[in-house]
Amino acid sequence: MTTTTHAIAVPAPGAPLAPTTIERRDLRPDDVLIDIAYAGICHSDIHQAHGDWGEGIFPMVPGHEIAGTVAAVGSNVTKFQVGDRVGVGCMVDSCGECEYCRAGTEQFCVKGNVPTYNGVGYDGENTYGGYSQQVVVKDAFVCRIPEGIGLDVAAPLLCAGITTYSPLRQWGAGPGKKVAVVGLGGLGHMAVKLAAAMGAEVTVLSQSLKKREDGLGLGATDYYATSDESTFETLGGRFDLILNTVSAKLPIDAYLGMLRVGGAMVNVGAPGEPLSYNAFSLLGGNKVLAGSMIGGIPETQEMLDFCAEHGIGAEIELISADKVNEAYERVQNSDVRYRFVIDTATIGS
Amino acid sequence: MTTTTHAIAVPAPGAPLAPTTIERRDLRPDDVLIDIAYAGICHSDIHQAHGDWGEGIFPMVPGHEIAGTVAAVGSNVTKFQVGDRVGVGCMVDSCGECEYCRAGTEQFCVKGNVPTYNGVGYDGENTYGGYSQQVVVKDAFVCRIPEGIGLDVAAPLLCAGITTYSPLRQWGAGPGKKVAVVGLGGLGHMAVKLAAAMGAEVTVLSQSLKKREDGLGLGATDYYATSDESTFETLGGRFDLILNTVSAKLPIDAYLGMLRVGGAMVNVGAPGEPLSYNAFSLLGGNKVLAGSMIGGIPETQEMLDFCAEHGIGAEIELISADKVNEAYERVQNSDVRYRFVIDTATIGS
Repeated sequence: MTTTTHAIAVPAPGAPLAPTTIERRDLRPDDVLIDIAYAGICHSDIHQAHGDWGEGIFPMVPGHEIAGTVAAVGSNVTKFQVGDRVGVGCMVDSCGECEYCRAGTEQFCVKGNVPTYNGVGYDGENTYGGYSQQVVVKDAFVCRIPEGIGLDVAAPLLCAGITTYSPLRQWGAGPGKKVAVVGLGGLGHMAVKLAAAMGAEVTVLSQSLKKREDGLGLGATDYYATSDESTFETLGGRFDLILNTVSAKLPIDAYLGMLRVGGAMVNVGAPGEPLSYNAFSLLGGNKVLAGSMIGGIPETQEMLDFCAEHGIGAEIELISADKVNEAYERVQNSDVRYRFVIDTATIGS
Repeated sequence: MTTTTHAIAVPAPGAPLAPTTIERRDLRPDDVLIDIAYAGICHSDIHQAHGDWGEGIFPMVPGHEIAGTVAAVGSNVTKFQVGDRVGVGCMVDSCGECEYCRAGTEQFCVKGNVPTYNGVGYDGENTYGGYSQQVVVKDAFVCRIPEGIGLDVAAPLLCAGITTYSPLRQWGAGPGKKVAVVGLGGLGHMAVKLAAAMGAEVTVLSQSLKKREDGLGLGATDYYATSDESTFETLGGRFDLILNTVSAKLPIDAYLGMLRVGGAMVNVGAPGEPLSYNAFSLLGGNKVLAGSMIGGIPETQEMLDFCAEHGIGAEIELISADKVNEAYERVQNSDVRYRFVIDTATIGS
C-alpha cells in the first residue's frame, strides 16, 4: 500500500548519486503528501553520502531542505489543504511528549527525533529525503511557506535558514549589536541576511576577501580576511556575537579575543577533531562559547514568516538532477554561491 | 604625609611571609581609612606570592578579602561614617567613565582596574593588600557589611563570595534549577551555600567523598566523586548549571555531558594549560561554556546584603599572623575547611 516516486539515491558510501524509484507510505490520518518542487543540497548531505558520520543507511536519498505543495492530506489533518505551499526540514517525527518536544524544541527529543533521511522512523521504516518528487510527512513536521518567498529560494531556509536564525535570536542579534559571521557559504550567507534584517551591524570573517562584494551586497557592513593576522588585532573586543558557520579547526582563543565583555561565540559547524582553548580567554571578559543545533518546528515557522516579511530567500544555483554529482564536488571545493537547489521536476526524466 | 601600619609581606617571589610595616596614604577627599579586623587568604594570594603569574611587585602584601571598620573619612565622603562595618575586595580603583564602569562592572574597566595589591594605582603608587592593620581606599570601592554577618566570616565574601554569586545569578540558579558545584574548597563551599539559598537543588562534584558530610551540611542535596567514572554516566543530562571552581585541567566533554539541553558550564577557576573540547559536545544540546571573573561593586554589595538576609558567612579557620606560612602550605594541600582568615590584631604584636 505505497506510492512509487522518482528519486536520486546514493547506492553505497561514497558512490555517485543515480536515479532510482522509492516507495512512500500511504497517508495515515495525520500525514501530508507533498509534491516536492525543490530540494537544497546541504554540506551535511555530502558527509552522510560519503559515510563520514559512521554507518549510514544505503541506498540513501539525501535532502532535508524541501519545498513544495500539498498534494493530499490524511483524514485528521486540518492545518493544511491541497495546494498549500509547504516545507520540510531536518526532522519528520519526534515523541511529542517529552519536555523538549512540548517546548517546541523537537531536535532535542528525549526519545530521539527522526531525521528526514538516513534515519529510522518509529514505525521501523527507513526514511528517505528530499531528492525525490514526493514525500509523506506527519503534519506536525510540515511548515507553511508564506506567499512572497519563491519555493526555490525557500528550500534552503529549512536547514541553512533555521540553523542560523535560531542562534541569532537566542543570543540577541538586533539593533545596536555587532555580529560577526565566520564563513560565507550556505549557512554564512543566510546568517548575514538574517542578522542584517534583525537590525544588527554585520561583519563577515572569511578566509580571503574573494567574496567581499557579495558579502556587502547581502547586508554586511564590514568584511575581513582571517588569513590576515592583523584582522584579529584590528577587531579585538569588537563583537557581541560571533556566529561560526564553518567546520574548520579554528584558533578559538583568537576568536574569543574579538568578543566584547559578555560576548558569545556560537558554533553551528563542528570539526571532527577536538578544539583547544585557554580558560582565561573566557574568564577575562565573562565570555561564552556555545553550540546551536538547527531549531524546533515553531521556530522554523517563525523564521519562514520572518523571511517572508523581510523578503529573504537563499541565494541559489538551480540545477537539474543530472548535475548533482558535479554539484557535490563543487560544494566540497567551496565553489557555490551560495546553495545548490535541485529542480525535482528533472528527476527521472 | 603618610600613616605607618603593621603588615605581613612576601619579600621576594616564593619567600615566606614576614612582619613589616608599610605606609598608607593620607586621606584624599573621597578616601576611607579602614581599621582592618580580618583578611581572608585566597588561593590566588599564594600564586602571586610565588610569582606564578609573571612579574609581581615585591615586597608584596597580599590580601583582597578585607573586613573592618571605618576609622576616618575624607572631606567629600558621605556614604560612610566612622565606625561603619565595611569590606574591600579585589579592586580599589577604576576609571569610572568607560561603559563597563558605568554599568557597575568595574572588573572590566577599559583603562584597567587597580588591584587591591600587587598593582599600581593611577597615581603611580604600588598597592598593598589586606594582610595589614589599616588600609586607605576610595569610597566607591568600599562595600557595607550589614549587621548580622560577623566581620570574620564576611571577609572571604569579598572574593570567594562574589566570584561565585555573580555567575550563579547570571546563569539563573534558583528554584527548579539543578546546580552542580565542582570542587568544595574556598570558592566551592560558598557556591554551595549561595546556590542553596537561591533555592536551587545543589550537587557537589568532588574528587572524593571525603567532605561529603560537610557538603550536605552546607546545603547540597547530593554529593558525587568525580574519581568514580560512573558518576558521569549517572549524572548524564542532569544539570542546568555546572559551576566549576577548580583550576585543574578537567575533561570538558565529560562535564558537558552532565548538562541538560541549554545548560551552561561556567568556570571561575582556570588552569594554566589549554583545555580541549569537542564542538559536538556543545552543539548536541545547545550547551554553553562560559567564564566569570569576580563581580562589580554594585553586585558585591548586593551579594553582601543577600548573605546577611540569608545568614550566610564563610566557613573559616581563624589564624594569627604567625601561622600564615603554615596556612599557605595547608591551602596548597587542600587542607582547609574552608577559608583561612587572619586576625589582623595579631600582626606586629
